[in-house]
Amino acid sequence: MTEITKISIDAMGGDHGPSVIVPAVGLALQRHSHLHVVLVGQNDVLAPLVKKYQLPLDRVTLHPASQVVDMDELPSLALRHKKDSSMRVAINLVKDQTVQACVSAGNTGALVATSKFVLHTFPSIDRPAIISAMPTISGGHIHMLDLGANIDSTARQLFQFAVMGSVLTEAVENIPRPRIGLLNVGQEAFKGNAQVKEAAQLLAATKEINYVGFVEGDDIYKGVVDVVVCDGFAGNIALKASEGIAKLISGRIKEEFNRGIFSKLCGLIALPVMHRIKHRLDPAQYNGASLLGLQGTVIKSHGGANVKGFAQAIEEAVIEARKNVPHRIGEKIEQLMKELPTHGQ
Amino acid sequence: MTEITKISIDAMGGDHGPSVIVPAVGLALQRHSHLHVVLVGQNDVLAPLVKKYQLPLDRVTLHPASQVVDMDELPSLALRHKKDSSMRVAINLVKDQTVQACVSAGNTGALVATSKFVLHTFPSIDRPAIISAMPTISGGHIHMLDLGANIDSTARQLFQFAVMGSVLTEAVENIPRPRIGLLNVGQEAFKGNAQVKEAAQLLAATKEINYVGFVEGDDIYKGVVDVVVCDGFAGNIALKASEGIAKLISGRIKEEFNRGIFSKLCGLIALPVMHRIKHRLDPAQYNGASLLGLQGTVIKSHGGANVKGFAQAIEEAVIEARKNVPHRIGEKIEQLMKELPTHGQ
Repeated sequence: MTEITKISIDAMGGDHGPSVIVPAVGLALQRHSHLHVVLVGQNDVLAPLVKKYQLPLDRVTLHPASQVVDMDELPSLALRHKKDSSMRVAINLVKDQTVQACVSAGNTGALVATSKFVLHTFPSIDRPAIISAMPTISGGHIHMLDLGANIDSTARQLFQFAVMGSVLTEAVENIPRPRIGLLNVGQEAFKGNAQVKEAAQLLAATKEINYVGFVEGDDIYKGVVDVVVCDGFAGNIALKASEGIAKLISGRIKEEFNRGIFSKLCGLIALPVMHRIKHRLDPAQYNGASLLGLQGTVIKSHGGANVKGFAQAIEEAVIEARKNVPHRIGEKIEQLMKELPTHGQ
Repeated sequence: MTEITKISIDAMGGDHGPSVIVPAVGLALQRHSHLHVVLVGQNDVLAPLVKKYQLPLDRVTLHPASQVVDMDELPSLALRHKKDSSMRVAINLVKDQTVQACVSAGNTGALVATSKFVLHTFPSIDRPAIISAMPTISGGHIHMLDLGANIDSTARQLFQFAVMGSVLTEAVENIPRPRIGLLNVGQEAFKGNAQVKEAAQLLAATKEINYVGFVEGDDIYKGVVDVVVCDGFAGNIALKASEGIAKLISGRIKEEFNRGIFSKLCGLIALPVMHRIKHRLDPAQYNGASLLGLQGTVIKSHGGANVKGFAQAIEEAVIEARKNVPHRIGEKIEQLMKELPTHGQ
């Protein structure tokens, strides 16, 4: 008998709020018969939507929260003044073990700060890191972290990201000894900044990590490693630059198929193929980033995610909750950090 | 009467060497009747190609150089041991004012190091920065620097990049007061690392620079600014990640149009449209990065550039030589650096 997995959802977060989140929960509940969801937010808003989308009432609980964290609110202010926000209450439910994981599409900075405040990181970890799946040319995916929670990471932090990424990938993807690469501006050992070079040495000296060397920006999509490790500054910029050029390309394609009657006709004929391409490139399938290093599972959905995207973030939460990823990370990180040389802290 | 523009070409550099470079020179000479090219390299290799591609002999000079810098050679070793390399000799010709600019598709690190050694940077600049045009969604382009010559840039260096990018864009694009944005992980003032935040303050306090604020990775392609300024680490990763995802997308499109008879037929019918899309997305049209901060014009072509791409890099050299970009940068940078507060060096 499969055990029940319980997930809390910040039902008010994100650009679209409950109107996208509630139907996404419906999708996830259809997919997983042993899933139970706690919808956190304003009950008078949520109850009609639960009815509208015919969510199974025996597997959905409404949990009240009177406040909402704004998408552009300062994390420190959200932490101080929004103690009854849907985000905060959803995380509280992880803390008191009512649920095994929570999902939010809300303000990233506030989610990182609140998760850290409520759930705490493991002793040797300063701040959570954001990890997400990224598509590869061969049609698979790899994981990459940090995508923007940490700025100015030290070599030891980069080392921690590598350990956490390795543990998550091994657990979730069933890949023994995932290949770890450090994001750099070249593959030669003499290239890069001081932090990256020192992190490379720490990783190379750690047998439990399958460190394979430096990778460059275009290697992210080549699938040459299973985990790409980087500072949150570089990671966030790589991710957003990729989003930007992808939009540029899809815009060009649309423009050209709309230029004149013949092109439009070609577009119509090629429509099934274009739909398949669109489907295969749909970012929704990679939605659901995980905040690693916390003593609990918190999944961040893209703020602008659609129903399919948010459902995918719930999927990620279910998998990580079932694999008990935080527990595995806690064990590994404390062991390996003890073995590290203490200079270069 | 238009003056003659003389350009030296490292004819042995790049992944494909003279077989791509010589026909590209042919294209550039056709385009510009007042262009004269000095082809630097091994004459016994170059002479037959000059004949094969029927280059106009009155506008091409062969200049001997016995050595070639390897694509993966250590810059320091190239500098020490390859004093008669095609790259070095092509740069020497800029130094002794035989030519007004040089173009190389060779080893980037060696090109930066050799250019700096031979031509020198302006007194207040430590290392050249690499700037290149980037496409925007609206069909235009902007410029971005640094793309990888500088790692761990200070706030003052980021400020210098902004000044140089502003001068180049004003001269080459005829844009008065180009809009300058600093690449960051968010647009709010509290986000980012210490260098970026301090650079923002320096730029905001400088009236001669039209600084508009922070931009994010996806803004590169939105055309919201004319120049995106960043550390070479972030810039290189943004550029390569963009290349990587662009390859992934074009690969997916090809795969789907090759999947089964119907898709292939659609692909055939849509071929003219696909060709137009390919043409509009062709990276060759953005080839030709400039090394700014040097007392001379040096243009870096992508190592893997094709004939059209290398010809575009020559085009860039012609424009920058005619506009005398280094002279303009020299004047502006020394003036503005004097006015900067000296703390935070």
